[in-house]
Amino acid sequence: MFESQVRPRLRPAREVRTRALHTFGLGESEVAERLGDLMARTRMPVVGTTVASGVVTVRIRSEGLTGEPSPAIDPTEAIIRERLDPYVLGADTDTLAGVVVGLLRARAQTLAVVESCTGGLLGAMITEVAGSSDVFAGGWITYSNQLKMSQVSVPRDTIDRFGAVSRQTAEAMARGGAQRAGTDWAISITGIAGPSGGSADKPVGTVWIALVGPGTADTRQFRFSGERQNIRDWSARTGLAMLRFRLAGREGPPLLRQVE
Amino acid sequence: MFESQVRPRLRPAREVRTRALHTFGLGESEVAERLGDLMARTRMPVVGTTVASGVVTVRIRSEGLTGEPSPAIDPTEAIIRERLDPYVLGADTDTLAGVVVGLLRARAQTLAVVESCTGGLLGAMITEVAGSSDVFAGGWITYSNQLKMSQVSVPRDTIDRFGAVSRQTAEAMARGGAQRAGTDWAISITGIAGPSGGSADKPVGTVWIALVGPGTADTRQFRFSGERQNIRDWSARTGLAMLRFRLAGREGPPLLRQVE
Repeated sequence: MFESQVRPRLRPAREVRTRALHTFGLGESEVAERLGDLMARTRMPVVGTTVASGVVTVRIRSEGLTGEPSPAIDPTEAIIRERLDPYVLGADTDTLAGVVVGLLRARAQTLAVVESCTGGLLGAMITEVAGSSDVFAGGWITYSNQLKMSQVSVPRDTIDRFGAVSRQTAEAMARGGAQRAGTDWAISITGIAGPSGGSADKPVGTVWIALVGPGTADTRQFRFSGERQNIRDWSARTGLAMLRFRLAGREGPPLLRQVE
Repeated sequence: MFESQVRPRLRPAREVRTRALHTFGLGESEVAERLGDLMARTRMPVVGTTVASGVVTVRIRSEGLTGEPSPAIDPTEAIIRERLDPYVLGADTDTLAGVVVGLLRARAQTLAVVESCTGGLLGAMITEVAGSSDVFAGGWITYSNQLKMSQVSVPRDTIDRFGAVSRQTAEAMARGGAQRAGTDWAISITGIAGPSGGSADKPVGTVWIALVGPGTADTRQFRFSGERQNIRDWSARTGLAMLRFRLAGREGPPLLRQVE
């Protein structure tokens, strides 16, 4: 009797609508600053943010009393997308790797990876997506300098002159990978995940990521913070984000922790 | 006054000692069966099990009242190690990958990986260990058959006759990887992580893992259950467990989900 008679009078059932917009490449505070008035507590629909593994998610929540429609979510979503463009990677169940695989599939293009400090983590993220074999050929874990040279044709001279963690080595890794795998795109990552291996010049967290693709190349330096696992995780996700920008037709806006 | 005067009389402070023994390769029920009387509720020290990512951990807990020594843990640990041998991989903060890296370092030997269905996950687990570059050269993510052939010398005929998921392809991947990387050891993994790609003959979860090393080779078939991520995770950990057996001088006892 309580359930059927009392509870409905205590708290009327509500119609709740929600949408999650996932972003990558901006810090949570930057997202909040851009959203500004949208995050006011009294506003409907309610807008808030959460963050996990570098992905800042904007959650829109709309509630209405029974019998009354909840305020529409779409207009708020449109404003948010405009303010956070081009960092919105998808909505609800979308993931960074899933979106990249989908964009590659839509273009019938293929991808290879060449990983040093991430040691396979980028490949693991991509192949977590069911059906990724349609677009992902595979790649190399060139953890040693020997494998960088012998497997993806990084010239010994490049490593000797600029170091394994450098723009030049990252670019050579990506170009060698795309060429050897015969793929349209390649992402390479080389950096210092720590806890040892850092120097004044190249502290722990220094990571170079290179992307090569049809008629395009994009190489960036990052300075990630945190523990070894955090640095590796950010490196892999940032590589995916760089490719997503290009596949979405964007020339590559700056990403969090990027060194100008 | 409550903290200083009352609480100590309510619940005397206890001396607590604990030890965790991590195992891989047996199911939790098999572990419990082997421990038998050790897990009786009235026994001291208390023995219980937990499981995470396939690692079954046996926890020993000993409590004594203040001023009285807690019962010794060592004799119980010795009995547990004997009953679960050779599946105990380490204690307390040890991890499967960390132990493998340590064993390789002690022997001054090196390792490469060749991954298909795991897509880099095995390499990622190994390189999660700080200092793994001492022993880990790197490897290949041969997700496509093309890369299996061109990068680690799997003969086209082998794939055509036996399939990409077969004993023969797994062995060729491992041998090609060790040879090309010039390492002492190589682990290869090829399987069907799903959700699609399975057949009556080779259902989703079918995984072949090959290990080659100095004067030794070990190739096994597994039938893992669960979702795509679970199958991939088990595959990578099982590859590490196969190597740990060999490095520990064991000829390779059966592992959970192994197909006889």
